[in-house]
Order: sequence, then structure tokens, then C-alpha cells
Amino acid sequence: MKLGSLKSNSSRDGELIVVSKNNKIAVKVPDIAPNLRVAIENWEQSYPQLERTYLQLNKNEIAGAFDIDTEKLHSPLPRTFQWADGSAFIHHIKLVRMARNSPLPETLTTVPLMYQGGGDDFLAPTDDIPQIDFNHGTDFEGEVGVITGDVPMGISPQEALKYIRLFVLINDVSLRGLIPEELKQGFGFFHGKPSTAFAPFAVTADELNGAWKDGRIHLALNVKLNGEFFGNADAGQMHFHFGQLIAHAAKTRNLKAGCIIGSGTVSNEDMARGSSCLAEKRMLEQIHEGQVKTPFMKVGDVVEMEINTPDGKCIFGKIKQKVIKA
Amino acid sequence: MKLGSLKSNSSRDGELIVVSKNNKIAVKVPDIAPNLRVAIENWEQSYPQLERTYLQLNKNEIAGAFDIDTEKLHSPLPRTFQWADGSAFIHHIKLVRMARNSPLPETLTTVPLMYQGGGDDFLAPTDDIPQIDFNHGTDFEGEVGVITGDVPMGISPQEALKYIRLFVLINDVSLRGLIPEELKQGFGFFHGKPSTAFAPFAVTADELNGAWKDGRIHLALNVKLNGEFFGNADAGQMHFHFGQLIAHAAKTRNLKAGCIIGSGTVSNEDMARGSSCLAEKRMLEQIHEGQVKTPFMKVGDVVEMEINTPDGKCIFGKIKQKVIKA
Repeated sequence: MKLGSLKSNSSRDGELIVVSKNNKIAVKVPDIAPNLRVAIENWEQSYPQLERTYLQLNKNEIAGAFDIDTEKLHSPLPRTFQWADGSAFIHHIKLVRMARNSPLPETLTTVPLMYQGGGDDFLAPTDDIPQIDFNHGTDFEGEVGVITGDVPMGISPQEALKYIRLFVLINDVSLRGLIPEELKQGFGFFHGKPSTAFAPFAVTADELNGAWKDGRIHLALNVKLNGEFFGNADAGQMHFHFGQLIAHAAKTRNLKAGCIIGSGTVSNEDMARGSSCLAEKRMLEQIHEGQVKTPFMKVGDVVEMEINTPDGKCIFGKIKQKVIKA
Repeated sequence: MKLGSLKSNSSRDGELIVVSKNNKIAVKVPDIAPNLRVAIENWEQSYPQLERTYLQLNKNEIAGAFDIDTEKLHSPLPRTFQWADGSAFIHHIKLVRMARNSPLPETLTTVPLMYQGGGDDFLAPTDDIPQIDFNHGTDFEGEVGVITGDVPMGISPQEALKYIRLFVLINDVSLRGLIPEELKQGFGFFHGKPSTAFAPFAVTADELNGAWKDGRIHLALNVKLNGEFFGNADAGQMHFHFGQLIAHAAKTRNLKAGCIIGSGTVSNEDMARGSSCLAEKRMLEQIHEGQVKTPFMKVGDVVEMEINTPDGKCIFGKIKQKVIKA
């Protein structure tokens, strides 16, 4: 099943739509739930009804279906009460810490890194990324993520997997120029992690075509910068799986339905797979070519992200964002 | 005006009530807004209606008013999309960093410290505080805070003050035993800052009786531990005022209506004012008596917080929470 949200003038949560498997048509479902937030908060009731609608939509047996206009799509959850982002790709951690001249955590391979994100103002999949100052070092981070139901505090990693409701594709916009100073203060990220964007469709596990295994999504995350190949790293190479990330987040708190847990930047050691963020590419240039050649994002730069099935079907729809002067 | 939220089985946002000035009676206002989240998101419409109801309630001129049962009250916002907590009392920063053997930030007096909190699952004012393990070092932190409207990115500190809608009293529950390890990872607080609690009533500036000046609340925050005096520090001694904290939070992002900004633990150099958290008291014992004598919270310990006007009227209602075994 694929779900999305239309931008709405009357609701900060957008308007829930069920989206066809080929991403071409959709239908509003106000009788099931006004928005995805409410649908997830009442998943036992809403899920079977949404699934039924999805099957009818794919057979073209539903009234009120309309062609999708990607500009009208918001992120699946235009906002959420809990957005916690892991950093489960060890290769990414090694490269960005090297770039910041920052030591690796002693617990690198045993305890996930995770930061608390702000969920009140997500960007839409095609929204511009505002740049206040080029020196802020605007970067993208391609990630995969999950949306959970109500997760009780203290859950085990294996049990945690059962609370995953939907999967998402994420651009965790980062301001590299602001991160070293704020991490030095000791309170973690804040300015360095402005509004995040998501690909338009949140999907259930069956849409991943068997690629959802061992708590990981074994598919390539395709990233383009200004229309050129930038990366197609395998999202399955997470060191910690999503059950471990959810359990980590729930160690001392409940997580409420609609909670989004991110994988952290998808990153592979195989250099042929490219990168999913500029910071890594820049560090690799420094290591292998002796100097950084790629700048951070400039006004006008465009980043695109998508994940396809092995037979080329776009699962989550596309993130396509341009940097503009704030 | 005083607003609160009843716990509700049917809404995760609780049920909005207007509360009388003496905290004794209240009235539901479903025709104005179902809950405080919605009221704040539509403040221009809801505020005059809520204010009118408040005036009628105080004159006992309203139908449907009922006696308040404090056990039925949730935090004013049972959840919110943006909860960012500053640390604007320099004395607190100095003491807790000393306790953690951690250096002071170079920008101590020029750039506010702020962490991104999780807003999906706040505790009610009388909810028990779950303790998984005594070694987690359960602590309370008495703070004041503000709830804002929609704040645009890049706002100035002076302008930011205009976006304050309501004031709140906060217990920022902290797990001191977990904080050093997680800060060492470099991503900031997560496990060390579990669910936060709030006093039951969120109030407008006029309820502060002239104590709202220079972006600060010039009133004592009274804290009791197991029924004994623990502190009555002046919340007016913030180094950074709320306009500065809001502007800091909004440096690279918009803040959406319902955003809560906390002051950080209220702390005064005058030792006669006591403390608003255990970590400070323990550090002061270490400094002045050569050893720590006060343990962190044990199962059964009770913390109480309230703020009164100079003539003894309780403004926000009371936080009263007991630690229980999780």
C-alpha cells in the first residue's frame, strides 16, 4: 500500500491520499481518516480500509480517483511529534568525523548514534531548500526511515520491528558549516539540522518486493546532483537494523504513533556506489586527491533522490529540491 | 487567562478547558477549540473567544462550569510538535558541567545552549515518573517556558517576544546517570531527557501580575522534595531572555504554533534560594562539604513545583510527581 498527503490550506497535517502502485493516480479517503497522522494513530481501524481502497484503486474500480500532480504533494507526514534520526552506517560516521576532525565514539559499533530532530515543519518533496548563507554549508543526506505505531518504553530490538507501519525516503538537510560549533557546545544538533524533506509516498513492507529483510531495506538509494549521478548506495548495509534503532529510541521513553526513525545517511565502502551526501564526497576527495573539489550546495543546485525496485519501479516517488536564497 | 487540558480517552491532545483565576473551576469550550493545540494554531480566532469565556467564568456567569479535579488534568499541551529547551541560567551550566567534569562552552555568555526535546509523550502534572534503574540518576529540573505562535525563521530577539502566546511551568525530568555517556557520543541528549511534565495551567502574560518584564518572568519557582523546601530561585535571573531563546531556535528553521521553549533549570548564585534540581545541590555539597550527601530520586520520592504571585496566588497550578519503579 502507498499513502501520501496533499498540501492543504485548511490543515497543517495535509490531506491523506491512497496512491496507486504506479504512482500515477490517487484518491482522497476522508471517510477513513482526514490525514496520515490520524490514520497512523488509529491504524487497526484505518489499515484494513486503506488496504481495501488501495486494491480497488489499482484495479481502477474506485470513484473519485485523480491524476497525481507532484507539486501538490507534501511529505507523507507534513509534521510529526517524534522524529529521531539514527546514524547506522558506520562508513558515514567515519568519514564525517574525519571531516570535522572529531574522534570516533568509543561505542561506534555497539551503541547507535541518534539525534532528536524537530518535527514541526517538514519540507515537501519538491520544496526549495532555503539558504541563509553559503557558509552554512548546505548539504543533503539521503536516508531511509520507518514510521512506527505506539512503541512502549524498554522494548527489545526484535519486538520493535513489529511496530513498523510504513517506510519512507528522507532528505535530512544538514548545514555542515554550523555543526562543529554547535556540537562543541555539547547539546547536540540544532541549527545544523533544519527542516527535513521526505519522498511523497510512505509504503507498507510488501511494496519493498522482498527487499525488507533483517530489519533493513536492501535497495539502492539513487541520488543525483544537478542531474548527474551522485550515488546509488545500498541501504541494506546498515550496521544497526531498524529494530535496534527503534529500541534505542525507546530505551527511556514511549514513542507515540507517527514516530519517524531515520537510518542516517546511507553509505557504502564501495566507492563505485558514490555517496548520499556532499560531506562524504568532499572527505573522499581530500583523502584520495589531496584536496576538496566539490563545494557545498549553491543557490540553484538541485538534488534528487529515489529508490527503485530491481525491475525499475519507483517506490517512494521522488525528492527533487532546489536550493534558493532564504 | 488560564487554559488547561483534561485527560481524554478519545483524543491524544486532551480536551481544552478555560480555568478560573483561582484555579478552582473550569469549563469545556468545544465550540471554540477541541484542544489547546488547535486553539494555538488558530489563535487569532480562538483568543478573543477564550478570553471572553474566562471573564464570564471568573464572574460565575457561565453554564457548564465544574470543579477541577487535579488528577484529571493533563499537561496544557499533552504533546507538541516542537519542544526546545534552552539553558539560560549560567549558574546552572557551571554547576552541572563541574559535576560532569566537562569544560564550559567557549560561547557560554554569548550563544544560548539549547537541546531539541521530544514532544510526543508529555507526562501529566501528577503523573508518576518511571524509574527503570536507580543508577540512571533520576532528577527533576524546575523551569519556566513559553508557548509560541508561528515564528518565522531568522527573527530577531525583540521581534520574537511578540510571538509568545502562553507561559508554562516545567519539570524537565533528567536521567543524570545516562547523560555523560550519551554526550560523549557527540549527538546531544536523548536517553537522558525522557518525558517532560508541565504544571496544569498555561497562562497569558497578564496573569503574571507585572512580573513579565525584559523577556523574563521575575518570580520565584518553589520546589519541594518529599514535602521539604528545596528551592525558591528567581526565574527572572535568566542570562538570555525568552526573545533570545526563541530567536536562537528559529535561526535556521520556522517554529510552528504550539512550539514550547524552555528556560533551562532556574538557578541563582544566592545559596539561600536553594536549587531547582538535584544535580546542583549535589555539586554544592561536594564544593562546600567535601562530599555529595543527597542521592538522586529514589522510588517513592515526591517532587513538587509551583510559582506564586507576591500575594501568594498559585499561577500555573502544581506539579506533584512521585518516582515509581518502571
